[in-house]
Amino acid sequence: MPVLPPAVLAPMDHVGRVGRLRDALGAAGIDGLLLTNLTNIRWLSGFTGSNGWILLTPDDLTLFTDGRYSDQSRDQLDAVGVDATFAISSTRAVMTADLGRVSCSAGIARIGFEGAHVSYADHRALSASVPGEWVATSGMVEQLRRTKDQGEIDRMERAADIADAALAATLPLLHTGQTEARFRDALEISMREHGGDGPSFDTIVAAGANAALPHHHPDDTRIVAGMTVVIDFGSLYDGYHSDMTRTFTIGDPSAIQAEVYEVVLTAQIAGVEAVASGARGQLLDRVCRDSIAAAGWGEWFTHGTGHGVGLQIHESPWLTQSYDDTLAPMDVVTVEPGVYRRDFGGVRIEDMVVVTTNGCRPLTKTLKDSPCPQSPPTI
Amino acid sequence: MPVLPPAVLAPMDHVGRVGRLRDALGAAGIDGLLLTNLTNIRWLSGFTGSNGWILLTPDDLTLFTDGRYSDQSRDQLDAVGVDATFAISSTRAVMTADLGRVSCSAGIARIGFEGAHVSYADHRALSASVPGEWVATSGMVEQLRRTKDQGEIDRMERAADIADAALAATLPLLHTGQTEARFRDALEISMREHGGDGPSFDTIVAAGANAALPHHHPDDTRIVAGMTVVIDFGSLYDGYHSDMTRTFTIGDPSAIQAEVYEVVLTAQIAGVEAVASGARGQLLDRVCRDSIAAAGWGEWFTHGTGHGVGLQIHESPWLTQSYDDTLAPMDVVTVEPGVYRRDFGGVRIEDMVVVTTNGCRPLTKTLKDSPCPQSPPTI
Repeated sequence: MPVLPPAVLAPMDHVGRVGRLRDALGAAGIDGLLLTNLTNIRWLSGFTGSNGWILLTPDDLTLFTDGRYSDQSRDQLDAVGVDATFAISSTRAVMTADLGRVSCSAGIARIGFEGAHVSYADHRALSASVPGEWVATSGMVEQLRRTKDQGEIDRMERAADIADAALAATLPLLHTGQTEARFRDALEISMREHGGDGPSFDTIVAAGANAALPHHHPDDTRIVAGMTVVIDFGSLYDGYHSDMTRTFTIGDPSAIQAEVYEVVLTAQIAGVEAVASGARGQLLDRVCRDSIAAAGWGEWFTHGTGHGVGLQIHESPWLTQSYDDTLAPMDVVTVEPGVYRRDFGGVRIEDMVVVTTNGCRPLTKTLKDSPCPQSPPTI
Repeated sequence: MPVLPPAVLAPMDHVGRVGRLRDALGAAGIDGLLLTNLTNIRWLSGFTGSNGWILLTPDDLTLFTDGRYSDQSRDQLDAVGVDATFAISSTRAVMTADLGRVSCSAGIARIGFEGAHVSYADHRALSASVPGEWVATSGMVEQLRRTKDQGEIDRMERAADIADAALAATLPLLHTGQTEARFRDALEISMREHGGDGPSFDTIVAAGANAALPHHHPDDTRIVAGMTVVIDFGSLYDGYHSDMTRTFTIGDPSAIQAEVYEVVLTAQIAGVEAVASGARGQLLDRVCRDSIAAAGWGEWFTHGTGHGVGLQIHESPWLTQSYDDTLAPMDVVTVEPGVYRRDFGGVRIEDMVVVTTNGCRPLTKTLKDSPCPQSPPTI
């Protein structure tokens, strides 16, 4: 079985994350912050259970969960060095009562909560049971989460390496007679064999006219000579996602397929070259969009240029027409322009890159200079 | 490639669902209901996009979505015969403005929303932009969704058949030297080969001491003689889930493994036999719990007995100690007692069944009378 060399991964800085989030409590005008979003809880504490809350105060961090996660929660927070108190309960009602008790004894008058992640009904129930002024906060963790530490970059690079290796191993199966769905299966199994924890989103394998649909779900469509095939996929590794796209032609590309491939590749390379600390998300989108428009294909580039990646497959920052924030070092983003038209199919090329002070470093390493697979397919 | 015979599926009754939900508006004291939960939207209208709202009034159904789903939304609602108006917008702000316009022209004074599915922040934004009194509703769709129509039962039976067939095809790989993760991969790929749309949740393959953890994630643990192996999995089919568990021993069971298997099997059979229209969820849990306790293993049965299944893997109704509602015909539930202790591993046996007037009909058909695989494993 093909196996990548052992990964050497820097530790993740959970202790630093807790400190930075604590530092933000004052500016938000709150005495404590209740986290209910499980991705944010994982990022802060390393806890991966399916039920949990964290109450963070200037002096304490309390994790609330149920008996299934009693040992696991202690082990996971210990492993990353996060000091915590644990409150284990059997029902949501007891968990809420525990929260009230802890909040009260910590003297919290203004308790922040995640406005986008607490439902209307849960807010009603919580604020009726737990005394204090409930203050909606917005994106406090997400803002910190977008800047990765070296441990996170290492995990995302590993996830990208797994995807690269799996594509190389699976390409010989990309031949006439293969179906989209079976190629998807082989690619996903190969990612697992290379050490991945599963696909990081629903793998796209889109052949022929299907390639003109940016979010096509693989089906029984047979791949035959003359088609373009868009393959958009990634791997999970220790919670972190990778994301890449390559487009291949089956047999030699037609004149229009070769032309569109060049157009998209030129735009994608220009986009990657423009990525740097300080670059505005909408400017990067503009770089790709103008490049494709200048070649006469602007109306067929129908989606945004890229997005941040991390513990979620889509997260801040964004490379879109409306995003006017700037990139910063240790942001991880995709650059993925595409051109789609049913007569020839579609072409999308996507790399995941990490932003550096004066540019970026690609985490995706599969070659992209040609739409012909590097290993000749078995026909 | 193994393929099941073609499925003959009854149509689903979306038009009837719309009628029943409309009939419930009056009793809820609302003039219209805004649905934001995508599972509820799919159940009502057949729409499967990743962005959408439905506003249902006594006279109209309006689907709000974006340009990606302009064609798809019309096609999907047409296909199931649901009459609708479509509002296509490019941003959340425009979508909200569209909602305000439609709500206003329909003369809605009291607009219901799904309290458990709208975030605090979204409720604030919506109620500030769309005039009228915003009324939180609770489980209006979920209550209707739990009773399946024949088209839904047929899809769930197909999903269960796919899981049964995949397990039969994969069992020869359950032998000494195999790893949990590789067996999981083979089982998932086989479900796809049998026509499934993917695993209906994270497949559990738990061997030896891992089998004592009800929610173990498959890893590189090697399966060896003397272990019990718990396999808990299911398939998706057209949006509907299946769920089943079988436990096998590698080689002949030890005395304690044979004893526990009998204890769990006896409880599971008693539970299935007790399922019927009118049976209270907590009574069914009690049947299994008492059976296991009478055999002296009560303290090692650490979870609930079962749950409803449908468009979600876990949904109403529940077979748990605290659920005092009764089952009704066309509910689909699991019955899955288990006993776990690290010295011998764990045993769980689970069938998915559809409730009938005087009993139930199993949708899971894999034999369960012995912990020895029916096809002898290749050692």
